[in-house]
Amino acid sequence: MGKGITKREVDFSSWYNELVSKADLAEHSDVRGCMIIKPYGFAIWEKMKEELDRMFKETGHQNAYFPLFIPKSYLSKEADHVDGFAKECAVVTHYRLKNSVDGSGVVVDPDAKLEEELVVRPTSETIIWNSYKNWIQSYRDLPILINQWANVVRWEMRTRLFLRTAEFLWQEGHTAHETKEEAISETEKMLGVYANFAENFMAMPVLKGVKTENERFAGALETYCIESLMQDGKALQAGTSHFLGQNFAKAFDVTFSDANGQKQHVWATSWGVSTRLMGALIMTHSDDYGLVLPPKLAPIHVVIVPIYKGPEQLIEVSEVAKSIKDELQKNGVLVKYDDDDKRKPGWKFSQYEMKGVPLRIAIGPKDLANKTVEIARRDTLEKEIVEIEKINHKVQTLLKEIQENLFLKAKNFTTKHTFKADSLDEMNKILDENGGFVLAHWDGTKDSELKIKEKTKATIRCVVLDAEKQEGKCVFSGKSSSQRVVFARAY
Amino acid sequence: MGKGITKREVDFSSWYNELVSKADLAEHSDVRGCMIIKPYGFAIWEKMKEELDRMFKETGHQNAYFPLFIPKSYLSKEADHVDGFAKECAVVTHYRLKNSVDGSGVVVDPDAKLEEELVVRPTSETIIWNSYKNWIQSYRDLPILINQWANVVRWEMRTRLFLRTAEFLWQEGHTAHETKEEAISETEKMLGVYANFAENFMAMPVLKGVKTENERFAGALETYCIESLMQDGKALQAGTSHFLGQNFAKAFDVTFSDANGQKQHVWATSWGVSTRLMGALIMTHSDDYGLVLPPKLAPIHVVIVPIYKGPEQLIEVSEVAKSIKDELQKNGVLVKYDDDDKRKPGWKFSQYEMKGVPLRIAIGPKDLANKTVEIARRDTLEKEIVEIEKINHKVQTLLKEIQENLFLKAKNFTTKHTFKADSLDEMNKILDENGGFVLAHWDGTKDSELKIKEKTKATIRCVVLDAEKQEGKCVFSGKSSSQRVVFARAY
Repeated sequence: MGKGITKREVDFSSWYNELVSKADLAEHSDVRGCMIIKPYGFAIWEKMKEELDRMFKETGHQNAYFPLFIPKSYLSKEADHVDGFAKECAVVTHYRLKNSVDGSGVVVDPDAKLEEELVVRPTSETIIWNSYKNWIQSYRDLPILINQWANVVRWEMRTRLFLRTAEFLWQEGHTAHETKEEAISETEKMLGVYANFAENFMAMPVLKGVKTENERFAGALETYCIESLMQDGKALQAGTSHFLGQNFAKAFDVTFSDANGQKQHVWATSWGVSTRLMGALIMTHSDDYGLVLPPKLAPIHVVIVPIYKGPEQLIEVSEVAKSIKDELQKNGVLVKYDDDDKRKPGWKFSQYEMKGVPLRIAIGPKDLANKTVEIARRDTLEKEIVEIEKINHKVQTLLKEIQENLFLKAKNFTTKHTFKADSLDEMNKILDENGGFVLAHWDGTKDSELKIKEKTKATIRCVVLDAEKQEGKCVFSGKSSSQRVVFARAY
Repeated sequence: MGKGITKREVDFSSWYNELVSKADLAEHSDVRGCMIIKPYGFAIWEKMKEELDRMFKETGHQNAYFPLFIPKSYLSKEADHVDGFAKECAVVTHYRLKNSVDGSGVVVDPDAKLEEELVVRPTSETIIWNSYKNWIQSYRDLPILINQWANVVRWEMRTRLFLRTAEFLWQEGHTAHETKEEAISETEKMLGVYANFAENFMAMPVLKGVKTENERFAGALETYCIESLMQDGKALQAGTSHFLGQNFAKAFDVTFSDANGQKQHVWATSWGVSTRLMGALIMTHSDDYGLVLPPKLAPIHVVIVPIYKGPEQLIEVSEVAKSIKDELQKNGVLVKYDDDDKRKPGWKFSQYEMKGVPLRIAIGPKDLANKTVEIARRDTLEKEIVEIEKINHKVQTLLKEIQENLFLKAKNFTTKHTFKADSLDEMNKILDENGGFVLAHWDGTKDSELKIKEKTKATIRCVVLDAEKQEGKCVFSGKSSSQRVVFARAY
């Protein structure tokens, strides 16, 4: 593993980049802005996918798959959507290469120009609503509750692994409903699914709220979001759920006959989370020794490392190690026994620390004599000696404790980094010193929102759902405001 | 569901297209050559993925994710590869759109032209080996056993749902090894995994063999394949596993220090199956009433349809139906209870027949009185009356029987449609009358292979592994041959 990584307090950004690399999560490819998700990183993403997919299916959704390419003209059918999305994307203009005349390689065949250019999907509302048009005639065809796991591309000039890449992986739900109420209820339900996943699997506390008009998804009437606070005091938008009204139905002329035979436009939602969640997971829990993973998303729960001199001791230790492994696996624990003879125990310890494996068990000859093992927690770095016969119970207990502890720790951090401010100066002081969520009054206008951003580099993360009402004055304009909203500097 | 579908013997191709549409598996999108996989079709694909993924992991492979885009120049680094692949693909030339001057929509921004064009991956050997270069230094870094689930694009002028589409979904395994022997052994192991999956999950008998040089993957030293026979007598290549030798390692300069400190080029394999398997599954088992699914890949094993008049009877029937559903689900059976009051039982019967649900249980008031239900098999269309208390045992038995029966039926079909021919006339006669696999002698030259294709429209599907040796004369040239190879007209 070589040396450690930069400490968080020295340079959070370097810490992040080095961790992603040393924990073998992802790397930049030679293709501008496109990442390679390495096997260990991908295994974590697979765990996330699996849980989310289960939750989507439990709430009545089915998966489907729509084309990667979107005809250019589709993007301009929904006016707001084109302004928000159509610009920075990968454009396919030709469908063939040919050998270059000088034999040095291949060139684009000018005879193979597409009549209409295709855009690599930045999001799929347009192509999906163009399909729904043919699927929906009657109220009997509704609701349509579909999700898609896919890759999408948004050309980005400045990229960071997981947080902002040109190509990323995500899921996008696209639903169609008879009524406005049903669509809003779906939007809120999926926000709840995301919040549940974030808090109970990622162990990451979130605020649930709605975006201001300015921060809304292009084409949405309302964008709900979950927002989380990273260890450097910056906020991260972890998931969004959009109430799209009838905008896409009107743009693509999707109507249905209601129970009375009247034609109506369909109501829509869309919602998504992406590989960005990997970045959120890393920045919420990890420390200066590397990744820290909540057990529910860890590809390996327990690593067992043998301590031995010579092959005979290894055989003795291995026998016990393997029986522990078997017993734990029988109880649903994901165990790796690392008896690689080419690496020393110390090297292994720091490797699995870097990779965030929640529990490490070390077994040596002394342990064999005492019928014990040493068990170390990744979250607190505490070690204790445990009797072998109690190991299964201990591991189960510790895994639960670590999951809970990580959530509580992050929750405490968020609470401690949530402030009230009643002026721009106060906001700037808080943000400069601590970062965090700053609750402040805002007059509800786009103009004030942009001015505050200009003066503080903070954006309105959300208007928290069910927040208490409180009269006050906008920190920028001094005009009256009925509740505080959440500001932060953000990823 | 409307009317039925064209019968197979009338027009196999129309039968296939209508079935794919009426069973709600997939449809064409407005984007040339790109399909939409609908929820029911995607649920079958998910079952396939799940099993294959489990098999890949059991054989030591890990998933990862590599970029969608490949720099144009990469494709020409491996000489054979560029000839086979670089030509028909989607080329990204620009990264931005802008509003058109006349306000009518968006146009490609000429200022946003890429320095080097990007190709949407038709397969990922080049981008992956470009990455492996940085991952491999020592023999300790080997083997690398990685799989990727991804979408790929190969521009096709004539497309058919699942069988040949411009964009399709697949998995591609890419492995790196110290020795030639290990790489060949991996290639063969993965062929075995595919054959196992095809026969034991898809219930589709396959021939295992190697391709001729002419039919090899571009860049491979040997292409292994599984080949299957469809009900119209045409062959379908269902999966391939390639021994790539050191070709890609040399093209991308991927070397390792062996245990003696000597630098060597790495040995490679790649292997893949795609959504084409959906086409194979459909054409192997389905009949004139619609889709027929092997239970191991069916999203619904059993549908329960209530027969009733009026709401009171429905309540009575539902009580029993739901208790049957619960009991079956407890035993791992996937059950749907369809009590939709808007549809008649007859409509439901034909709908679930069209969708290939292996078992249908009908329950009406008479059944309640007799404590029985009627159970119908989709494969044989046979019905029988079963006592309710024996239903779980009966369902388990029938699901096993159907899985086995489908395989045996397809196996019989393949056996009956496997012929020997000793002349081109004989081959043509067989192929025109019955289709099927034709075992014939071939002299091993590309010239004869192409001439035979010209005269019979049949290609060499494979040289079967471990086939018996037999002296004979090539059906085209009359030159000597040491074994028969498998010809067929193919998808």
